[in-house]
Amino acid sequence: MGNILILYDSATGNTRQMAEFVASGAKSQNHNIRLKSIQQANKDDIIWCNGVAVGSPTNMGIVSWKMKKFWDKLGDELWGKIDGKIGCAFSSSGGWGGGAEITCQSILTILINFGFLVFGVTDYVDKNLTLHYGSVVAGEPRSESEKESCRRLGEKLSLWVSNIITDSKDENM
Amino acid sequence: MGNILILYDSATGNTRQMAEFVASGAKSQNHNIRLKSIQQANKDDIIWCNGVAVGSPTNMGIVSWKMKKFWDKLGDELWGKIDGKIGCAFSSSGGWGGGAEITCQSILTILINFGFLVFGVTDYVDKNLTLHYGSVVAGEPRSESEKESCRRLGEKLSLWVSNIITDSKDENM
Amino acid sequence: MGNILILYDSATGNTRQMAEFVASGAKSQNHNIRLKSIQQANKDDIIWCNGVAVGSPTNMGIVSWKMKKFWDKLGDELWGKIDGKIGCAFSSSGGWGGGAEITCQSILTILINFGFLVFGVTDYVDKNLTLHYGSVVAGEPRSESEKESCRRLGEKLSLWVSNIITDSKDENM
Amino acid sequence: MGNILILYDSATGNTRQMAEFVASGAKSQNHNIRLKSIQQANKDDIIWCNGVAVGSPTNMGIVSWKMKKFWDKLGDELWGKIDGKIGCAFSSSGGWGGGAEITCQSILTILINFGFLVFGVTDYVDKNLTLHYGSVVAGEPRSESEKESCRRLGEKLSLWVSNIITDSKDENM
Repeated sequence: MGNILILYDSATGNTRQMAEFVASGAKSQNHNIRLKSIQQANKDDIIWCNGVAVGSPTNMGIVSWKMKKFWDKLGDELWGKIDGKIGCAFSSSGGWGGGAEITCQSILTILINFGFLVFGVTDYVDKNLTLHYGSVVAGEPRSESEKESCRRLGEKLSLWVSNIITDSKDENM
Repeated sequence: MGNILILYDSATGNTRQMAEFVASGAKSQNHNIRLKSIQQANKDDIIWCNGVAVGSPTNMGIVSWKMKKFWDKLGDELWGKIDGKIGCAFSSSGGWGGGAEITCQSILTILINFGFLVFGVTDYVDKNLTLHYGSVVAGEPRSESEKESCRRLGEKLSLWVSNIITDSKDENM
Repeated sequence: MGNILILYDSATGNTRQMAEFVASGAKSQNHNIRLKSIQQANKDDIIWCNGVAVGSPTNMGIVSWKMKKFWDKLGDELWGKIDGKIGCAFSSSGGWGGGAEITCQSILTILINFGFLVFGVTDYVDKNLTLHYGSVVAGEPRSESEKESCRRLGEKLSLWVSNIITDSKDENM
Repeated sequence: MGNILILYDSATGNTRQMAEFVASGAKSQNHNIRLKSIQQANKDDIIWCNGVAVGSPTNMGIVSWKMKKFWDKLGDELWGKIDGKIGCAFSSSGGWGGGAEITCQSILTILINFGFLVFGVTDYVDKNLTLHYGSVVAGEPRSESEKESCRRLGEKLSLWVSNIITDSKDENM
């Protein structure tokens, strides 16, 4: 049994809604789940988790400054000490083509920098929607397939965490 | 009056359709337009143009190998000699979240490497569709707003080329 | 005669040193130059400039949260109204392979989002050092070639601004 | 005991040298190792491996067209069927700032697209050299720290493969 953190920043509530669906999907395996905004989360949540899904609004194609601040501050104490966790990304943008994929990529870049193993999902949740670099939605997650995209990310995170928790906990903190 | 090249690789015809709409938009200013596939184009087209829109199918989130080959080969002769041209990107993917934005980014990376000035477009062509890093479509461009996204890219390319052709032609080749 | 802004965030002083060399290079053409930290700069500097070089320390492979905050806040008022300016990037990292190039890319992503035309430089300033996606230095700019890399970025920015100022000022604010 | 593939494309021999050091580091755990160029490797090597290190020369800031072709062709048969493997990247460029990090990122993008879990390494192998997004070298790996950077990548890959092989082999092919 492992520990999974869904960590989000949300300005309009759209990314928060995504986070809830991701959390719902993450329950597919028998792990402990924490759903927290960056206002609620702290370094202990990061140390605690074996896997994390990080969500941010799409702001100029890069993770929001508030989410970046969270990880920049965290780095002062934890960087280099928490390698080997699993990570993934999700983002809500103003429209398709607005940078949600690239924002997910910026989140993955941060997580890779921390030594995490990051992933996307090959599944199509609808004939026109997938989540190859993390879940992306234009606006709020309204359609069933958009909600399923978020849940699927959580499910996959949950699955990969099951695969690695045996050993990696021993080596890292 | 400047020269604009619309250069594309297309496997299924979707990216070719996009290219045609981009070319249509590029006609908004009084420039010479060439619409060519990578099979039709050669280094003289690149030397000739002041601005280029490069389109590729979304293949694994990175420009297709055929398009990459075009620029890798071109580099042997022209790299370092064609700085200062204007560039932009477009891509058709299998679905939203499938990597079209990231593919556009890979195209822009190649163009930046050649010393080009690259851009995206801030405009929303519909309440849910924009082209901040280039035009992106899931499948073929079917809706009016998807077609308009391609045309808008061409229009903007045309506009930026108008702004720079006076001087940059003198300095480069 | 155009207006060039060198905008930087610096934690240790390394990025500030880079900024000074970029500013020095930018003087190669007869433009007005402003060298400002994000604490000193405001939206009027952004409106004023025709071209901007943006520098950030490499923090987790993405622009520092302070620099991101600057652009996120700016966007509330100016986004969509300042398209067509010229932009480029520079970054100081802890070591080669530490993410300075990727941090430059994150800066370019932000600038592209604002509708700017962004560029890198093809020139090698030494047999082992170039600035294809912006100037990058490990630590402070110590060697002559590292300093020259920063100056070259400024020179190129200055040159591209000369090429576009005639028209773009009329269309944008 | 798991299976590790070191897969490379090399034009000048520099990336091949890197690949050999990566392979040497990968032997730190008791895994089976295959070191293959893209001319030598085929889809069976990809199916066989639990983890892969992919190396490419830095060509225009994006993986070489030959390496891209390898994965594009592979996708026709294997995409969506080999999720959950571990992946990492390495690249040799013409100079620092020449795009080696961004090339590594393009490799990671491809691997993420295939559903792999990708990583970088937090360790500094020297006070001025690290491999946060994969091993990067300007030219050939000459200094001891550059060689160690490659070996460290292999070691880390070997370690992460040890952590996941128990379960993931059952689920994927």
